[in-house]
Amino acid sequence: MRQASGTLTVTAPRQGLHLITDAVAAWVADQRMSEGLLTLLVRHTSASLLIQENAAPAARRDLERWLARIAPESSDYEHDDEGPDDMPAHLRSALTAATLSIPVLDRRMRLGMWQGIYLCEHLRSPRRREIAVHLMGE
Amino acid sequence: MRQASGTLTVTAPRQGLHLITDAVAAWVADQRMSEGLLTLLVRHTSASLLIQENAAPAARRDLERWLARIAPESSDYEHDDEGPDDMPAHLRSALTAATLSIPVLDRRMRLGMWQGIYLCEHLRSPRRREIAVHLMGE
Amino acid sequence: MRQASGTLTVTAPRQGLHLITDAVAAWVADQRMSEGLLTLLVRHTSASLLIQENAAPAARRDLERWLARIAPESSDYEHDDEGPDDMPAHLRSALTAATLSIPVLDRRMRLGMWQGIYLCEHLRSPRRREIAVHLMGE
Repeated sequence: MRQASGTLTVTAPRQGLHLITDAVAAWVADQRMSEGLLTLLVRHTSASLLIQENAAPAARRDLERWLARIAPESSDYEHDDEGPDDMPAHLRSALTAATLSIPVLDRRMRLGMWQGIYLCEHLRSPRRREIAVHLMGE
Repeated sequence: MRQASGTLTVTAPRQGLHLITDAVAAWVADQRMSEGLLTLLVRHTSASLLIQENAAPAARRDLERWLARIAPESSDYEHDDEGPDDMPAHLRSALTAATLSIPVLDRRMRLGMWQGIYLCEHLRSPRRREIAVHLMGE
Repeated sequence: MRQASGTLTVTAPRQGLHLITDAVAAWVADQRMSEGLLTLLVRHTSASLLIQENAAPAARRDLERWLARIAPESSDYEHDDEGPDDMPAHLRSALTAATLSIPVLDRRMRLGMWQGIYLCEHLRSPRRREIAVHLMGE
């Protein structure tokens, strides 16, 4: 049994959900472990992770609109010194996930056929985001 | 240190939350590891996982009603070609969890006394659901 | 490769979010593993875990107010025999996280600079809370 640690760096093209499945799968394949456990941790509080439907762009857009509706930009937040998109970014991050744990078999993540891994960029001006990755297995 | 990979298959009797604690506990016990880490991944985007109160059916029903309220069926979704329950199913999945990580000790999950593991079936016509399971320890 | 299991016990001073990063970091450092995977599981259904912004008290307060708004105290719940704060506590727990998985490197969690780990106490009268911790690595 052994382990590997790394960092994936992603800059989203715009606010919203961005598929990173391929980049994660490539890192996993590089570690050459046939069976194990993969862990992802987004190292930010205004971006998050989500496993969701990977095929329908309309589903992605509906998800983005829903996040904007239940954690809206608003003048009612006390914490607003970093811009109107900052506090909703924290709320949308709290709603989704900071960490994901994904079993690996035959060097591949055991995701379902319709599942993709998304980086959720919650700020209007996307930043360089780091995702800590860890794989343990053999 | 060693690891085990498996798949639990569940078909819920109806839309809503369904306790799967016993099935998970049985798989863990079968692996005969006294200490370790258990990981669950639901392999679908219209069903999810949740650790919640395992005793009060009224709490379960309130949770189901609350999910239906904050991620409602509606004619406002752009993605509606798979039925009116499909897009809310994705939203309710995003709100809850796709993966869970549970420490194991003495061959048992370290859940609290009132905690159960639920499969959340978000579609009106339940389907056969697969949960990837992974245990690493000794 | 080896593993360690423990329990962190926390009683929050009041309802809301409470930083526990230091207590978790101390436990991790005590295990003297340079690289590994840390898992946290809150053993309750009316308290939860969250990785969020660790510096701005206003952001913490906005988060608490938002949780109170989308999972409010109300007389509409069927499950109300444990008090008006009990059912919203379950809902706020479902919204946030019961388990967290955090890669460790150089004996430290790989959290981002602005990330802290919070225990979310959702009851008005805080109780003694147990968090199961597990570290695997070497």
